[in-house]
Amino acid sequence: MAEQRAAPETEEDEALDSRRVTAIMSAVEADDSIRLTALLAPLHAADIADLLEQIGPAERRDFLRLYAAEIDGEILSEIDDSIREEVIAALPREVVAEAVRELDTDDVVDILEDLEAPQQAIILRALEDSDRVAVEQALAYPEYTAGRLMQREVVVAPEHWTVGETIDHLRGAEWLPDQFYHVILVNPRMNPVGYVTLGRLLSSRRETRLREIAEESFRSVKATEEESDVAYMFNQYHLISCPVVDANDRLVGVITIDDAMNVLDEEHEEDMLRLAGVGDESSISDGVLDTVKSRIPWLLVNLVTANLAAFVISLFETSISQLVALAALMPIVASMGGNAGTQSLTVAVRALATRDLTGSNALRVVRREAGVGLINGAVFALIIGAVGWGVFGSPALGAVLGAALIVNLLIAALAGTIVPLLLDRMGLDPALASGTFVTTMTDVFGFFAFLGLATVVLL
Amino acid sequence: MAEQRAAPETEEDEALDSRRVTAIMSAVEADDSIRLTALLAPLHAADIADLLEQIGPAERRDFLRLYAAEIDGEILSEIDDSIREEVIAALPREVVAEAVRELDTDDVVDILEDLEAPQQAIILRALEDSDRVAVEQALAYPEYTAGRLMQREVVVAPEHWTVGETIDHLRGAEWLPDQFYHVILVNPRMNPVGYVTLGRLLSSRRETRLREIAEESFRSVKATEEESDVAYMFNQYHLISCPVVDANDRLVGVITIDDAMNVLDEEHEEDMLRLAGVGDESSISDGVLDTVKSRIPWLLVNLVTANLAAFVISLFETSISQLVALAALMPIVASMGGNAGTQSLTVAVRALATRDLTGSNALRVVRREAGVGLINGAVFALIIGAVGWGVFGSPALGAVLGAALIVNLLIAALAGTIVPLLLDRMGLDPALASGTFVTTMTDVFGFFAFLGLATVVLL
Repeated sequence: MAEQRAAPETEEDEALDSRRVTAIMSAVEADDSIRLTALLAPLHAADIADLLEQIGPAERRDFLRLYAAEIDGEILSEIDDSIREEVIAALPREVVAEAVRELDTDDVVDILEDLEAPQQAIILRALEDSDRVAVEQALAYPEYTAGRLMQREVVVAPEHWTVGETIDHLRGAEWLPDQFYHVILVNPRMNPVGYVTLGRLLSSRRETRLREIAEESFRSVKATEEESDVAYMFNQYHLISCPVVDANDRLVGVITIDDAMNVLDEEHEEDMLRLAGVGDESSISDGVLDTVKSRIPWLLVNLVTANLAAFVISLFETSISQLVALAALMPIVASMGGNAGTQSLTVAVRALATRDLTGSNALRVVRREAGVGLINGAVFALIIGAVGWGVFGSPALGAVLGAALIVNLLIAALAGTIVPLLLDRMGLDPALASGTFVTTMTDVFGFFAFLGLATVVLL
Repeated sequence: MAEQRAAPETEEDEALDSRRVTAIMSAVEADDSIRLTALLAPLHAADIADLLEQIGPAERRDFLRLYAAEIDGEILSEIDDSIREEVIAALPREVVAEAVRELDTDDVVDILEDLEAPQQAIILRALEDSDRVAVEQALAYPEYTAGRLMQREVVVAPEHWTVGETIDHLRGAEWLPDQFYHVILVNPRMNPVGYVTLGRLLSSRRETRLREIAEESFRSVKATEEESDVAYMFNQYHLISCPVVDANDRLVGVITIDDAMNVLDEEHEEDMLRLAGVGDESSISDGVLDTVKSRIPWLLVNLVTANLAAFVISLFETSISQLVALAALMPIVASMGGNAGTQSLTVAVRALATRDLTGSNALRVVRREAGVGLINGAVFALIIGAVGWGVFGSPALGAVLGAALIVNLLIAALAGTIVPLLLDRMGLDPALASGTFVTTMTDVFGFFAFLGLATVVLL
């Protein structure tokens, strides 16, 4: 894919700083495609793609009109899903066709996944026959599986070969993948049986057998494995690449670490956004209406649960009208509970994602959180109780405030830990527990404990 | 480091499932070190380290007593910081000494960083002289910089060499790093000027010059660069390894993708925990008191800010005592604002971390969030206004509720976006904005808008 530069030694790629962005945008405004192309030339495709995401839709249209001829496969595959459809629609068909022809099949699959059928058809038609077959086979695997992630271009050698035979074979090969880090050893049935790093291949004597220098530890994944499990495996076992096999354990492709790193990054984003009650697919480049759509569902849930809290308060209207200070103090109990619950929840969701929280230590973690809730409850009960006493001159009011706080921080700790554990046990994403559920529980129980105790003790 | 297995082809590494954990723990309980060793033999060092984190302190002591002799460098470097000190203290000195002697210098540095001085001294004394010097040099770089992250073992070649010369040199080398993916090209002053992937080296003809097959794109980092910037670079540009240079651009080491992936993972964790107001260093294996300590600071901040909200409410006590329904309805406005603020905040913090939100699109994003806040405010104002009217039979109360909601969702959107942007501009971590600040603003303004409007309009 890459033409070689004559002299790579002096040029480092340049970064996308704000001065360059300003210069680029003024070239776009001046309709100056020659200056625009010159300014973009030293940039990495990933930075050009980022720039396209950061500018507004109108600027993007102008940009693409001036720069269409230079858009290649690399830029296309770096562009965020949220604007890819729009970008492809803005480009002439020949440009898109030529761009995708340059790419490895896994990158073409990645682009195709998120497009509508008509755009998919244009791209599939542009591919050479063998590539189209490979892409269609990959698309036959379910979304978010290893089969979608892998590249089908693999470098293999029979396990009985020597280092010399292997090097001669590689040197004679007409075509090799852009990036590969291992030679995968296969038996006659094409089952992968180990791998040899290129470093060891290079440093071993020609007559050494490959199986003698195979890596100590060896893992492969099924094509139907979920991509999040694959990413976990790369991170946990420090893999660089991993062979993918079909149901009969035959080698069908290979996944490399950069793809796994990408998945890991997306999983993190999903967890963060879900915890905050934001749709996973949302992006900073979305328009106002898409953003509204992605935020409304959880706000609606929150509206319902907030009404629950309001209902609890309304049960105590008589108490509040007798002692109106209760209305001012009750949000303190609720808000402390909400914060403590969010703390427990976030720690639990993160630990489940990294698999540090499992069935074997769940009970201990729940017990620890309960202990933390009680201790923090006691600490803050003393503080707020003393403040309540001081400000309102009523030790009983201080005691009620303190007691309600202890109850609510205990509930916060338990809800924040048990809810995500249950969701995980049920096979759901624990991040779906999201702040909304936990803060509802701490609101409802906080108001109930405080107003209930106040009614019994003070009135 | 790795001895070769005789026959790698049949054995895949086994996973740490709950059945195996149960079997392992019963071997520990039975004081059966032979069975324990047999059960752990097929596990990857990373899984053994995870197991040590998941069990309680007492079980861990028993485990280590039975398994001490088998603890090697790989397990030691996989163990989480939170228990490493405890584990090292529980092991005989000879075991620790032998374990660290096996490791690459970057792994030794990683272990040393978090230890107290006496344990550091034990480990430094165990190293061979040349390794000790390398480790001490790395420790001279500030924490969280590329200099700490890099390994000093590099594979280099003069740029004028041919493929054949390079392969012969590698084959003759007495020692090579465990993992390397590129040969770094250097000029006579040891400045890195490009790199050649091993795949291309293997597939090129012997007489080809290295500089002709160097990668198109080439980046190096300064040893003083922050590790988060390094991780961003690996992720953005799909790097596999990256040379590290000193102030004079001389090659001093190399960082590989597995280290960068690790940093990226830690950065994510830090962002998530900070957003939730949890100390960054907290871990699922911490004891109750450490956990209490990591959670108290933000709860204390929240206590102060919750009192601010209580103060705002107390200003309107007369209004509440005249119309006690206000007390039940006011948390709805506050809670909707809190949720919407958390949504905006999370999206902004994540976009700043991925550098999708920059100076050049900040204004557009703020405007978009404001638009989203207004639209969502209007949508929910209609719903809650109608509900308020229906339940309380007062269109004016419904209108006040709706108007307060619009104001508060607008404030939520602006605070959730502008606060992290400002922190970032000031060179602070935007995740420090944390939910606490934003929910305080939405609480205070929510109560003020609702009670204030109610006082003016209804009473």
